[in-house]
Amino acid sequence: MFKILRVNMSDQTARFEDIPSDYEGLGGRGLTSAIVAQEVDPTCNPVGPLNKIVFAPGLLGGTNCANSGRISVGGKSPLTGGIKESNSGGQAGQYLAKLGVQAIVVEGDPPAGKLFRLVVGKDKAELQAADDLKGLGNYDTIAKLVQVHGDKMGYVSIGQAGEWLLPSASVAFTDRELRPTRHAGRGGLGAVMGSKGLKAIVIDPEGGQLAPLADREAFKEASKRFAKALGEHPVTSEGLANYGTDVLINILNEAGGLPTRNFSSGRFEGAEKVSGETLNEITVKRKGNPTHGCMSGCVIRCSGIYVDPAGKYVSKWPEYETVWAWGPNCGVDDLDAIARLDRMCDDFGLDTIETGCAMAVAMEAGLKKFGDAAGAEELLAEVGQGSALGRVLGSGTEITGRVFGVKRIPVVKSQSLPAYDPRVVKGIGVTYATTPMGADHTAGYAVATNVLNVGGSVDPHQVEGQVELSRAFQVATAVIDTAGLCLFVAFATLDIPDANQAVTDMVNAKYGWSLGADDVAALGQKVLGIERDFNVRAGFNAADDRLPDFFRREKLPPHDLVFDVPDADLDRTLKF
Amino acid sequence: MFKILRVNMSDQTARFEDIPSDYEGLGGRGLTSAIVAQEVDPTCNPVGPLNKIVFAPGLLGGTNCANSGRISVGGKSPLTGGIKESNSGGQAGQYLAKLGVQAIVVEGDPPAGKLFRLVVGKDKAELQAADDLKGLGNYDTIAKLVQVHGDKMGYVSIGQAGEWLLPSASVAFTDRELRPTRHAGRGGLGAVMGSKGLKAIVIDPEGGQLAPLADREAFKEASKRFAKALGEHPVTSEGLANYGTDVLINILNEAGGLPTRNFSSGRFEGAEKVSGETLNEITVKRKGNPTHGCMSGCVIRCSGIYVDPAGKYVSKWPEYETVWAWGPNCGVDDLDAIARLDRMCDDFGLDTIETGCAMAVAMEAGLKKFGDAAGAEELLAEVGQGSALGRVLGSGTEITGRVFGVKRIPVVKSQSLPAYDPRVVKGIGVTYATTPMGADHTAGYAVATNVLNVGGSVDPHQVEGQVELSRAFQVATAVIDTAGLCLFVAFATLDIPDANQAVTDMVNAKYGWSLGADDVAALGQKVLGIERDFNVRAGFNAADDRLPDFFRREKLPPHDLVFDVPDADLDRTLKF
Repeated sequence: MFKILRVNMSDQTARFEDIPSDYEGLGGRGLTSAIVAQEVDPTCNPVGPLNKIVFAPGLLGGTNCANSGRISVGGKSPLTGGIKESNSGGQAGQYLAKLGVQAIVVEGDPPAGKLFRLVVGKDKAELQAADDLKGLGNYDTIAKLVQVHGDKMGYVSIGQAGEWLLPSASVAFTDRELRPTRHAGRGGLGAVMGSKGLKAIVIDPEGGQLAPLADREAFKEASKRFAKALGEHPVTSEGLANYGTDVLINILNEAGGLPTRNFSSGRFEGAEKVSGETLNEITVKRKGNPTHGCMSGCVIRCSGIYVDPAGKYVSKWPEYETVWAWGPNCGVDDLDAIARLDRMCDDFGLDTIETGCAMAVAMEAGLKKFGDAAGAEELLAEVGQGSALGRVLGSGTEITGRVFGVKRIPVVKSQSLPAYDPRVVKGIGVTYATTPMGADHTAGYAVATNVLNVGGSVDPHQVEGQVELSRAFQVATAVIDTAGLCLFVAFATLDIPDANQAVTDMVNAKYGWSLGADDVAALGQKVLGIERDFNVRAGFNAADDRLPDFFRREKLPPHDLVFDVPDADLDRTLKF
Repeated sequence: MFKILRVNMSDQTARFEDIPSDYEGLGGRGLTSAIVAQEVDPTCNPVGPLNKIVFAPGLLGGTNCANSGRISVGGKSPLTGGIKESNSGGQAGQYLAKLGVQAIVVEGDPPAGKLFRLVVGKDKAELQAADDLKGLGNYDTIAKLVQVHGDKMGYVSIGQAGEWLLPSASVAFTDRELRPTRHAGRGGLGAVMGSKGLKAIVIDPEGGQLAPLADREAFKEASKRFAKALGEHPVTSEGLANYGTDVLINILNEAGGLPTRNFSSGRFEGAEKVSGETLNEITVKRKGNPTHGCMSGCVIRCSGIYVDPAGKYVSKWPEYETVWAWGPNCGVDDLDAIARLDRMCDDFGLDTIETGCAMAVAMEAGLKKFGDAAGAEELLAEVGQGSALGRVLGSGTEITGRVFGVKRIPVVKSQSLPAYDPRVVKGIGVTYATTPMGADHTAGYAVATNVLNVGGSVDPHQVEGQVELSRAFQVATAVIDTAGLCLFVAFATLDIPDANQAVTDMVNAKYGWSLGADDVAALGQKVLGIERDFNVRAGFNAADDRLPDFFRREKLPPHDLVFDVPDADLDRTLKF
């Protein structure tokens, strides 16, 4: 049933292919990474003709399994120069899976200056001109597309940042209310989409159906156990639903690991004002919606709706990392401003983490003062205007830092560090340094065990145990991303052994496989191995698996710690 | 007699040290690279506290050997992220050598916002405040310094680009007429100097003396043979003196290897108008000076003086690579405009190659049209103004290309390719790909043999022989740069065996050594090995030794060739 849809922008053709045997048994991140590793020249210009962009729902896509509708996007990253997988919620993953499209591979070189949209439906796919969408943000793009294609579709799009090939450009996915608020944010894959002249993908779910199951009863039984676990764990049942991911602000601030003013302090005096608790309170007071699922089949519902004092929609609830990037990291304590900045990022099609970090670096360079929310809005608006400064900010933290002569640039493999200071939460520091993705909390969320005591506990201040912790998380995450599950299910699978088993049971029941725990671990290791091998061929070596020198030299208040995990430990993290 | 001067910007101290035994037997590039490799953390931020900038005259510095006054500048490159040596003419090399200063090592972290000048004299060195020079270009900087220190000094300085830590910033050296026209241009070492808060170095030659010679008679005899050879070879005796390095415009255009409009053609219709012959003719007509030595002891005298129609000084004669970068590569055929652009680069303290290539990439992005000389001047002026666009251009070709979404970015290791298209002159393509310096013609000038038939001849269109050619040139160049000789002496040493022997004889006579030909080759290999090892520790591997993909895909008219030297050949080039 499952096919790859191969789209060639050079001649504007789209055809379905059987999945080559090399790619069998893979989905989501495993599949995007395998295709990129096999088909893309690792030394190519990421926005040139030799790169490809790949979209893939996960192994559990197209089923009734809770939270299984994530979609992976892969390619050579315009930001890092290495392999990239970034995944997103929204409707596209489930729709594609139900249409039997296991992957869309977009390749070739479009005619200069032309824009296209790809319309995918049951057993059909076609490129159509989209020059009328040129220069539009994601919100206007979707509004125009809905006029033509209606409100039953799933939409994938890029904003101005993607069209202009900016290295921080994201790929946007519509949620159930057709808002382009779910993003494959990290690593600039929106620029790869832009380089293909592909402004949007329209997915018509009509005629789609649930994926066939090798053992329907076994699947049903396992999926019930899985949903039960998600409903029982306090994080997946209540914490995220009430406070969103922003629940972490107070927790990280208390831990002294909330990076403040470009990673110069671990505590922010205005933390409470931008916390999840405040976010909930404001939202309830203004009659917004604090509990919202970003995709069909979600039972966690961490994604609220942010409204202004008049009750008017501003944006989806900004994620913790977004609130952090534009809030504490820029010295800003104004949630309304942060929500507007989130909206602008979604509209231009920019990674909120990368762009917020770039802004903090610009503030360190003196372009605006830390804490100047209006100044941040003013500068971010320049991205949408396409000014030189806007393009610099849209090129990410490292380029912004280099252009403005900043000595403290918080990046690994040219990708900005997210919202957990690695000097205080050392397990996540190991992940930042060693994941093939560039600094990325979602690649191996050691924070769970370091700070939240989920899946056990490992003292976040000590070196001991961090490598093993990060490794275990990175392997497990590669599996979760390959399955197409929302990463947040891991809170339950880490603490409830049967939830973990249920995931394996569902995969086995769907495909008629008989994977054991070792096979699952081997799958995760295989995906990481594919990615690391690509990066070696792209020019990376062990020296790229390092945090910037200032994390090794500057003590972070209040705990006055440095990142001191030895290089040799980093180097053994992903050697299996 | 010889010492290292170690300058610590953290506490503003300067002290003389004996040369550690690790560094013995090295000078110039060999010495700067050895110090950087041993003392600088390869993973550090190049403009942060852990980098160092090193200045070193060569092994033959401080002698009467012709053309032996070059000075090497080394550090971790803000442009490439790898090791960098860039050398220059001017007076500083000879002055330092005669003062017995074999190297200046500048390290540490200056107080924020402060600028200093280092005043070096016979057995003395001192840091003095230089806040009055803040924001000045090199011409104004030198004018102010001359008011204080007089016209007997050698000056080293940075312009605005260095102060602002821009990755293309150069280090300027004054010539005999106190003009800051000689530059260690490539790789952004001016930004390292800026990061140390060091605006200038003032070198007082008073009390300096010729270096001691182990065998005075043998040295004298060998230096005569060497000077005789330089006087006999047609390139070093006449070609360069009459037409400057710009003599190459017509030659490369004829060869079809003159990169035009961002490497999209190998011939430029306006070549004649910017050729060395025209440069000579204009200069003679306007009563400028077509024959000028950039440093004492130069017998080649390739550096003329460019004057405007009224006979007023504009700049030194722009080098071939400068004329090319701002001329054919930008589609510009106006020598007056090119001379003004050269002057601006010298004044702001920018590498002319990197910045001209960045401009061509900006033209490809549509910021100005190819051929718009006034537009180029207008954009370059923005660097001196410090606008966002100016800072982007001053950050080099790759960052300019990425910020403006250009698919064809001609760089290796993030450094722009110079003035010889590697598809047509394949030997230089091997050098671009494999030198530890990033794309650099001076690292192994295979053009000599490929195009000029100096040192034999190797068909530039064929793959065969290019690896061996580039290797031989890279090894020999490492020796020449370590000796402190002007690279142009190689035209004579390649064709006149006794000239080559004379160089070895002079080194032996100066130091009382007995190096044979094998030892000399081993010295060159040792220097390259030190540099390559640093780069591995900085995160480079074989995949970084590649030309951008478009050189492998796009045929260059008129010969319609691609760069097709196999990767495996590149990988064996510097394996000894």
